[in-house]
Amino acid sequence: MAEKKMVEAITSMDEDFAQWYTDIVKKAELIEYTSVKGCMVIRPYGYAIWENIQRILDGLFKATGHENVCMPMFIPESLLQKEKDHVEGFAPEVAWVTHGGKEPLEERLCVRPTSETLFCEHYANIIQSWRDLPKLYNQWVSVVRWEKTTRPFLRSREFLWQEGHTIHATAEEAVIETEKMLNVYADFCERYLAMPVVKGKKTESDKFAGAVSTYAIEALMHDGKALQAGTSHYFGDGFAKAFDITYADKENKRVNPHQTSWGVTTRLIGAIIMTHGDNNGLVLPPDVAPIQVAIIPVAAHKPGVLEKANELKEMLSKNFRVKLDDSDNSPGWKFAEYEMKGVPLRIEIGPRDIENNQCVVAMRVNGEKEFVSLDNLTETVEAKLTAAREIMYNKALENREAKTYACTSTDQIKAILEEKGDGFVKAMWCGEEECEDKVKELTGVGSRCIPFDQEDLDDKCVCCGKPAKHMVYWGKAY
Amino acid sequence: MAEKKMVEAITSMDEDFAQWYTDIVKKAELIEYTSVKGCMVIRPYGYAIWENIQRILDGLFKATGHENVCMPMFIPESLLQKEKDHVEGFAPEVAWVTHGGKEPLEERLCVRPTSETLFCEHYANIIQSWRDLPKLYNQWVSVVRWEKTTRPFLRSREFLWQEGHTIHATAEEAVIETEKMLNVYADFCERYLAMPVVKGKKTESDKFAGAVSTYAIEALMHDGKALQAGTSHYFGDGFAKAFDITYADKENKRVNPHQTSWGVTTRLIGAIIMTHGDNNGLVLPPDVAPIQVAIIPVAAHKPGVLEKANELKEMLSKNFRVKLDDSDNSPGWKFAEYEMKGVPLRIEIGPRDIENNQCVVAMRVNGEKEFVSLDNLTETVEAKLTAAREIMYNKALENREAKTYACTSTDQIKAILEEKGDGFVKAMWCGEEECEDKVKELTGVGSRCIPFDQEDLDDKCVCCGKPAKHMVYWGKAY
Repeated sequence: MAEKKMVEAITSMDEDFAQWYTDIVKKAELIEYTSVKGCMVIRPYGYAIWENIQRILDGLFKATGHENVCMPMFIPESLLQKEKDHVEGFAPEVAWVTHGGKEPLEERLCVRPTSETLFCEHYANIIQSWRDLPKLYNQWVSVVRWEKTTRPFLRSREFLWQEGHTIHATAEEAVIETEKMLNVYADFCERYLAMPVVKGKKTESDKFAGAVSTYAIEALMHDGKALQAGTSHYFGDGFAKAFDITYADKENKRVNPHQTSWGVTTRLIGAIIMTHGDNNGLVLPPDVAPIQVAIIPVAAHKPGVLEKANELKEMLSKNFRVKLDDSDNSPGWKFAEYEMKGVPLRIEIGPRDIENNQCVVAMRVNGEKEFVSLDNLTETVEAKLTAAREIMYNKALENREAKTYACTSTDQIKAILEEKGDGFVKAMWCGEEECEDKVKELTGVGSRCIPFDQEDLDDKCVCCGKPAKHMVYWGKAY
Repeated sequence: MAEKKMVEAITSMDEDFAQWYTDIVKKAELIEYTSVKGCMVIRPYGYAIWENIQRILDGLFKATGHENVCMPMFIPESLLQKEKDHVEGFAPEVAWVTHGGKEPLEERLCVRPTSETLFCEHYANIIQSWRDLPKLYNQWVSVVRWEKTTRPFLRSREFLWQEGHTIHATAEEAVIETEKMLNVYADFCERYLAMPVVKGKKTESDKFAGAVSTYAIEALMHDGKALQAGTSHYFGDGFAKAFDITYADKENKRVNPHQTSWGVTTRLIGAIIMTHGDNNGLVLPPDVAPIQVAIIPVAAHKPGVLEKANELKEMLSKNFRVKLDDSDNSPGWKFAEYEMKGVPLRIEIGPRDIENNQCVVAMRVNGEKEFVSLDNLTETVEAKLTAAREIMYNKALENREAKTYACTSTDQIKAILEEKGDGFVKAMWCGEEECEDKVKELTGVGSRCIPFDQEDLDDKCVCCGKPAKHMVYWGKAY
């Protein structure tokens, strides 16, 4: 049977998690490889997920006062070099344009790996006085980083993202913005992607190149590895000084303003796959699913079935993203296909159902099937989508909690990871980079973040035994 | 006075049209220059116009069955070279990436100037049988062409666009698609941008590199120069052959499919400026205006004025994009500012108005001011926006008609252009490239398109006197 073949074609996640992931991105038609190593085609179904993410996030950004702009994709080498830490972090992994047509360029241009330097140049042009502040900008573009090893969505040479860039009169305002946007990301992930995240601060060694401090949200995948789902950076006035951005304050003194930037990427699609997917394929959060309800007519050749299916489609399309599949594939084949594609709800309707004024609604997240009345079907679908969202969130949270281990020694970390497999490790830290490195060397897990929600597990650093400063989440990361 | 200064700062369009244009893009805060020659920052107000264009067009594309995808921004040199005409057309003007980090690439990559070759590679991967056809794709991205002389929106090294790419089982279907999308563009320009266009076919010498035929919509700017506002290309099976794209037809024979592509760019913003703008600044079509209604409180310090202005804003925001300007700038300064920014309607409200349950509505397009009742203000605003759209369209059409000249000899073309200035010339043509070139040489105007709406002006070619094949629109072009 076709549906058998389709399901069999996915590697089980317990057998080979990496292959399971690759199978899903291909079989669910999210991406296709290209002859440009590390770059991919995002196919309609994959891109539609991104469009939904974009639409929701863009609304959240605009509701918090941000405006979209568009910067050039090229950065002259001299501009990239203006901020010392920033160029050190990014120069080794940029793509360089050296020729325009047949002519060599006077100065090399890199394809933006991120756009702080371009925004700084622009700020210097347009900001004169305190009246011009703050500027709260965002752009939706793609960026390029010349990675050695690549994986669809998780690490690719070109990826889509949004980068927010803001500039403020005071450090306080900029810090508030940095934290506000981290909260926007966290709320977005939890509410719309049904994905619990840990909010926290990165350690010094893990900061964005040029930042005073970097905040991040960290999620835990099915396989116990951590994934950084979004970051927000506070820059202080370091970039402003490097790019000579000043404004006249109310006393008409020239002052350097303070900056932030924050971003999420198409990685989020990878996070969705590895948070919610199962051995039948994708499981999509209802809010970003390109198709929320798939209607499958059963015995479609029988009189009245297609008409009724069409009627349901018409009705449900007023509130939901609906697909009626009236192709000549078998219902079983269609069931498998929409399971693979992670469609949250499937409606089956056949002659007997029509007689009984009912249909079957099957939930992707737990396979539950129920006969429901055709009366109030809109309300039923709404309720089931809400339920799906909750079940997904709770499942993901349970997974994370089951795989989070509080430890008080590096030996304990090693033992627990050996016994239970990868996961988040919570352990105290003295704040010294030396200990951070040593924990990684001894146990294999690096610091993920210093969570805002601190717990007092012990008073000693898990590594050196000196007084602990922070509780840290440790883990292996994507 | 500040508003005086602001208005004076724009060059008059009769004095220096090019400078008038440049003044508007800067003063209306549409763009800012950067240190990357030929690349610009699209500022929030400019980008919001593009977002509105995108939203409307994207809806029209989806309503006609198209899906969005995202291709890589890089094209390997060998891939670009596969279709002979295509590479000849584009290779001289592409930006070449030669290094990733410190390492030279094995093969140079160009930054996409257009994506036919990438789509072809993808089609070859995903198309097997007639069941896989058609594919109706689109993407919203930026592309790069290494132009020598650049102008904001009109000709820049990087520009934003959408590129539709479709592939069909038969030539007939592909031709229908090519024409359908040209009509979508024409309807969009006329209905949403209030910009009349001429639909037609490009001559052989003016076709897109690799196309069998290119269709275009041509608009006439204030200064009598033509602007190509959108193009749609029929490729036949030339690309399919070059890229070895085949499908199994219903008889299981391998056949080459047929392709199209079509695009509009941020040029449209340039077209809006030069179609509708005046000596006070931008005049924006209501459908794409970031702000449709600006509310200016008069004597805002008087009790009740700001409250009432806020109340109107609340109410109108349900249906329109509204900005209430309660800054401490003078009303006169604000009038000038929103005129410069082309906001379609301005509402003035002061203490006397409130007493009389009225406000002033001023229309940007003709400066008309009217006292209107606060009752039914939503309906009044709706009616005024509709009227603005019509007036703008009619003004633009009148301008085009006044500057369109039917001619039957090259001497007549020269004389009329000398007397009246630039414009569209309608004249008959034998179809020979030699005559096309000679008309340009003798008169300065090149062929813009062979319009679908043919007229029989004469039976002889305007150049050689041999039997005429087509009536052609000629003009100087942006």
